[in-house]
Amino acid sequence: MKAIVTVMLKDGVLDPQGKAIGHALHMLGFPQVGEVRAGKVIELELDETDRAKAKTAAEDMAKKLLANTVIESFKVEITG
Amino acid sequence: MKAIVTVMLKDGVLDPQGKAIGHALHMLGFPQVGEVRAGKVIELELDETDRAKAKTAAEDMAKKLLANTVIESFKVEITG
Repeated sequence: MKAIVTVMLKDGVLDPQGKAIGHALHMLGFPQVGEVRAGKVIELELDETDRAKAKTAAEDMAKKLLANTVIESFKVEITG
Repeated sequence: MKAIVTVMLKDGVLDPQGKAIGHALHMLGFPQVGEVRAGKVIELELDETDRAKAKTAAEDMAKKLLANTVIESFKVEITG
């Protein structure tokens, strides 16, 4: 089973990386670009057959290691 | 319209960040974790009403700036 954890900065938290990407895209000739937010995605292979257990474990991993929940929010998807 | 660009290292390209995360998760008491891959996600607000045009533009941005296509692959999703 595969877990995909997406970690983004919370709304309201300044995102300098996103700002820099937006600026660079304008320079490259993409004037249609508005706000840009940059985040991380972590794909985990889990030796687990129960979907619910896999989700709970991945959420636990996100809280303990993958996300800084003070400034970041995360989302877990289970596939395969 | 919103474009979500996910950038991952291609299969076969060594991913030291993923390896470090996997190792840390084992140390934290998650023995069920197998291979881990780490990537980036970039959310772009686009001033565009045509879904197909938004997708083409986002793919163009990924090729020109967001992904290094020598070692990274990308995926574009259009929402909203």
